[in-house]
Amino acid sequence: MSMQRFKLTIEYHGGLFSGWQRQENAPSVQQAIEESILKFCRLEDVRLHVAGRTDAGVHARGQVAHVDLPARFAPYTIKQATNYHLQGAPITILKVETVPFAFHARFSAIRRSYLYRIINRYDPLAIERGLAWHVRPPLDISLMQEGAEFLLGKHDFSTFRASECQALSPIRTVEKIEISRQEELIEIKVKAPSFLHHQVRNMVGTLKLVGEKKWDPIRVKQALEMQDRRQGGPTASAEGLYFIQVDYGVETA
Amino acid sequence: MSMQRFKLTIEYHGGLFSGWQRQENAPSVQQAIEESILKFCRLEDVRLHVAGRTDAGVHARGQVAHVDLPARFAPYTIKQATNYHLQGAPITILKVETVPFAFHARFSAIRRSYLYRIINRYDPLAIERGLAWHVRPPLDISLMQEGAEFLLGKHDFSTFRASECQALSPIRTVEKIEISRQEELIEIKVKAPSFLHHQVRNMVGTLKLVGEKKWDPIRVKQALEMQDRRQGGPTASAEGLYFIQVDYGVETA
Repeated sequence: MSMQRFKLTIEYHGGLFSGWQRQENAPSVQQAIEESILKFCRLEDVRLHVAGRTDAGVHARGQVAHVDLPARFAPYTIKQATNYHLQGAPITILKVETVPFAFHARFSAIRRSYLYRIINRYDPLAIERGLAWHVRPPLDISLMQEGAEFLLGKHDFSTFRASECQALSPIRTVEKIEISRQEELIEIKVKAPSFLHHQVRNMVGTLKLVGEKKWDPIRVKQALEMQDRRQGGPTASAEGLYFIQVDYGVETA
Repeated sequence: MSMQRFKLTIEYHGGLFSGWQRQENAPSVQQAIEESILKFCRLEDVRLHVAGRTDAGVHARGQVAHVDLPARFAPYTIKQATNYHLQGAPITILKVETVPFAFHARFSAIRRSYLYRIINRYDPLAIERGLAWHVRPPLDISLMQEGAEFLLGKHDFSTFRASECQALSPIRTVEKIEISRQEELIEIKVKAPSFLHHQVRNMVGTLKLVGEKKWDPIRVKQALEMQDRRQGGPTASAEGLYFIQVDYGVETA
């Protein structure tokens, strides 16, 4: 049976899942998609490889995974059949493309983009519940942007790294942090070739302290230089985080 | 016991409710708020009067209701105590203000504003499910705006009126219909002193036919002039409708 590698672009609401990765006794995005694929392609097993293993509660608008399937399936068929069998689950396959076997969703990725959404108001959330981090104290985004400048570039990000992070090195290069506000909604866009575990949420949790004037912006630089997780701010809620885009080099995508 | 009239501004996610109005054997927004108020003010009964009785599934960002409560309660206390007892329900009291007894949430209203959200793409919704109308055929919003022009002003809106509508007259004055698109999201903002039952959803369902080129824009004018519900387009989904604002004259608010 001739096989073909396919690249899947995926949207999901993270609220009902224990995260991307398969786990025993907990629903995962990976398991839901793999089981949907198994329903139409008669393979014994199927395995997705993903660009970013999102945590429980984290959403995605442009997650990317690859999978090897019989070459007789057209990309359109895979997309339609998977979405059909996913019905009920808040997961949608947005795009399926053929890619060479040299393509790997995780290792070929050259850039990842996240969006972090904060609703900054006193009152509890009704409509946006689960879709944003609810932050009560008024945040000054110009101070947050000032603090964010210290995080740009290549640094040892140990201060913003989860203790369970498996990466070999704490060095990462943050290319962009853009903070904007429209009424009560604050959006933070972050781009880097790759991130440490919880890095975006730990950076956002720290910038929140700056926004509410508990920290001077310069303290972000000091905390970063300490290379010690205990010097950083708390981890921002998973509910505000959206994995929005993965970029690949032209030779593989 | 001295009483005071209070104006409440309310946000809710309509997905879990059978609508605003109390019904036997079905959860309503009205009942959830009234029961929350009864938990802290020792009255035998309490009754909310609302600006717009939204249908099942319809959301609100700025619904307005009034209620008469013992004058000893401060507006801030009412807001905090009601939100506290609402915990779990996707309803938030955004504001509580004292108003004169001449103020009536429904009869003193001089203008109502709705937002209608369409996600215009082929793929099923994962993150926005329940928060927008999913429309697959590509919509041309400049054609929709052309069709919408015919609905502006004072007309007999029988073509866009639900058969169960209780209003005495089918004459209404639409002051504004603004249609914009940002990528796959189409937003339609509509303003009028008041609306007939299902009027916004029936107008949107008709403009969708124009957007997908099943109807010429001029047919909206012809349908309107027929003053016959059977000449209008289908009713757009409740999930896309948001009641966003109610305006009152200066003398009562």
